Amino acid sequence: MKSRMSRREFIKVAGAGAASLGLSSCTSPRTAGGDKATAKRPSFVIIFCDDLGYGDLGSYGHPTIRTPNIDRMAAEGQKWTNFYAAASVCTPSRAALLTGRLPIRSGMCSDKRRVLFPDSAGGLPQSEVTIAEALKDAGYTTGCIGKWHLGHLPQYLPTRHGFDSYFGVPYSNDMKPTPLMDNEKTVEEPADQTTLTKRYTEKAIGFIEQNRSKPFFLYFAHTFPHVPLFASRTFKDKSPRGLYGDVVEELDWSVGRVLDTLRRLKLAENTLVLFTSDNGPWLSQKLNGGSAGLLREGKGCTFDGGMREPFIAWWLGRIEPRRTIQDIGSTLDFLPTILSLAGAKAPTDRVLDGVDISPALLGTGPSGRDVMFFYRGAKLYAVRKGQYKAHYITRSAYGKDQEAMHDPPLLYHLGHDPSEQFDVADKNPEVLAEIRKEVALHLANLTPGEDQLAKRISSN
Amino acid sequence: MKSRMSRREFIKVAGAGAASLGLSSCTSPRTAGGDKATAKRPSFVIIFCDDLGYGDLGSYGHPTIRTPNIDRMAAEGQKWTNFYAAASVCTPSRAALLTGRLPIRSGMCSDKRRVLFPDSAGGLPQSEVTIAEALKDAGYTTGCIGKWHLGHLPQYLPTRHGFDSYFGVPYSNDMKPTPLMDNEKTVEEPADQTTLTKRYTEKAIGFIEQNRSKPFFLYFAHTFPHVPLFASRTFKDKSPRGLYGDVVEELDWSVGRVLDTLRRLKLAENTLVLFTSDNGPWLSQKLNGGSAGLLREGKGCTFDGGMREPFIAWWLGRIEPRRTIQDIGSTLDFLPTILSLAGAKAPTDRVLDGVDISPALLGTGPSGRDVMFFYRGAKLYAVRKGQYKAHYITRSAYGKDQEAMHDPPLLYHLGHDPSEQFDVADKNPEVLAEIRKEVALHLANLTPGEDQLAKRISSN
Repeated sequence: MKSRMSRREFIKVAGAGAASLGLSSCTSPRTAGGDKATAKRPSFVIIFCDDLGYGDLGSYGHPTIRTPNIDRMAAEGQKWTNFYAAASVCTPSRAALLTGRLPIRSGMCSDKRRVLFPDSAGGLPQSEVTIAEALKDAGYTTGCIGKWHLGHLPQYLPTRHGFDSYFGVPYSNDMKPTPLMDNEKTVEEPADQTTLTKRYTEKAIGFIEQNRSKPFFLYFAHTFPHVPLFASRTFKDKSPRGLYGDVVEELDWSVGRVLDTLRRLKLAENTLVLFTSDNGPWLSQKLNGGSAGLLREGKGCTFDGGMREPFIAWWLGRIEPRRTIQDIGSTLDFLPTILSLAGAKAPTDRVLDGVDISPALLGTGPSGRDVMFFYRGAKLYAVRKGQYKAHYITRSAYGKDQEAMHDPPLLYHLGHDPSEQFDVADKNPEVLAEIRKEVALHLANLTPGEDQLAKRISSN
Repeated sequence: MKSRMSRREFIKVAGAGAASLGLSSCTSPRTAGGDKATAKRPSFVIIFCDDLGYGDLGSYGHPTIRTPNIDRMAAEGQKWTNFYAAASVCTPSRAALLTGRLPIRSGMCSDKRRVLFPDSAGGLPQSEVTIAEALKDAGYTTGCIGKWHLGHLPQYLPTRHGFDSYFGVPYSNDMKPTPLMDNEKTVEEPADQTTLTKRYTEKAIGFIEQNRSKPFFLYFAHTFPHVPLFASRTFKDKSPRGLYGDVVEELDWSVGRVLDTLRRLKLAENTLVLFTSDNGPWLSQKLNGGSAGLLREGKGCTFDGGMREPFIAWWLGRIEPRRTIQDIGSTLDFLPTILSLAGAKAPTDRVLDGVDISPALLGTGPSGRDVMFFYRGAKLYAVRKGQYKAHYITRSAYGKDQEAMHDPPLLYHLGHDPSEQFDVADKNPEVLAEIRKEVALHLANLTPGEDQLAKRISSN
């Protein structure tokens, strides 16, 4: 803590300035003088929570939820403060993360139903290319643990989308019958949710141990803190925040176990770990829902509380510790970023909405993302460009209220006004004009996919 | 970062388990094996902001205000999440901090005027004993830099309340004519506020340098981020949060300069530094006011947003780094805590409302505070006991609305519900009974002081 390296020194020592980022041999500052890391492709772990709010971690300001492991992860890595899930509800958000494409393109969002349900007949189309598929083609071992929610019929399961293995629940834990699956087989029904986080974590550790000697990709998507809330006996009734806190503190424990495993196996300097959540807190659940901190609204909503998330990136020796990143980023960016770092090919025959944010991760440049689109269902509600966010349509999270149309749109400066309280549209006509151009460009380039969420088994 | 000491090991090495805390010779973990610290009394620095909100620092969750120095202070020390200023506006809050007594006892709160104004004839009574007076009696050099606001007539100035020296403005910076004083002399009028933070900081560094060889107490009370906002040229137009961010980022710079000075002079292991603010954010100032994060309401209000504050305690080698403390604490506790650590005597002829929280600081026990009283003016509005807070009266911060009386009181569980949203009074009659007892005990033991805030020069 005393003699911290300057940013420049860090980049030099870590070799992040080299042209072939992620592929070059590098001597980490931690192993300098010791055994040199061999030139090998990095592994990747995505830890994805369900309904965790922007304000639900100690390092993001929560006063009573204790998250020492995630906070340490942030201290050893980067903490982002303008990072977005790609949708405000589960199914579209996950589709976007795995494909790098807005869910409107894959048909994984709809104005009829907001997510997939047990009676849904749709799912992520086979034509979509997931991170797992692209990495598998490049020789990676791929594993999916946890909640899927991109189609539970056999043809849509993780094992049909590039994952070598799967262990988890196929949709949300409030949807009956909540089966637990091992690859394509249901092994428990209903799943015992009290031990889910624990069992997921054991599986994750096992996966990492098994694949220690080769490059791997683990997509670890927790079932919680989505309601109904369950914590194991070790965490039940322990948190000052009550049951919601118990559940998040068990997730924190899980994060610690995963990072400890990487350290123990000496993989920490060759593994990029990304921690975030699918959408904001489910506020209508009251004490069983989380907190968006100072952000407006929560899950289901296109105000920032619905989509801005904690995001922590960790890679010992490659990502400079103790940095707060204000660049805009999104889960949409995971695919291009990961494929770039892996030296794998991203699909070139389709529109990708993600950008490669590895320069921001490695300290060599900005994230490259300047624009973020906020969809509700299949409809574009809001657009962020730089610090400004324009709301063309607003609607409360789960209310029965009608859409409110805004012309001119509501305009907020998110740097000055992260809580989206003070409309500055009348003072910034040129900003509105710029955003209008972005929207036109976006729409001109948009071919909506076939609606997957409207399909039902009964009507199939 | 790799091999952090366990809490037990830290306490052992730091010698914090010794009976004579703060007075015993101790070998710090950082200097172990090197030159041993000699047994000497610790110095104290209180850095006190004006109207900084609970959510206004990076380490407390603000997404766009950059506070790397304060965040580092938190990482090297303790970050408290249930810490309260003693009042929701300036004058009573400061009186309480310096005396360890609720302002109702010293007469430094009133139902007629909420703070002192330039036409006020009152001030902190000479009968009150400040931290400075008690430490001066114990041989400390004492300095006050910044905003005073406890009486600007000569008999109430810092130099009449135990401070050897004073440099600053005697009341809020929105009150004309805002003179700048050196000891008891006005040296600039109106004060050039653009350079105030910078000049305060230079004075603070000078004070520390001058007193490096003897125990000192510095009460460094910033003028900002109270409106009107001013930042020096170096910080103006730099923060993504706009002017408010510029101002807070300059305060952050100032904190870094003070801590660097302590490090450079090798005083860091013998100086306890306490950072906090006088009350919550002034929300009615809109973009010129701060954020209470997830807390309800702000300055002027007895909801937590009005009085809960960031509080960071830093003492290298004595306070275990990287700890989040959820114990309840208050600026009321500064006097007993500091005097205890200094081996100085606290006044015994009067009621003190503060408790010695040094066990929580040094990791040897809990803070000892279980109850917190929330006054508005001279009237008790709310009481926190443990995790529960009962509101007998509520009223919006600065609104012209009437008081709303609650019988039974509104009851919130602040652990589960830090945003004070879900009344649980009907489920917890026994908690209400406990709190009623605390109130009775408190009131039985209360003699209000003569109202100092109602006195005006014209009517004097």
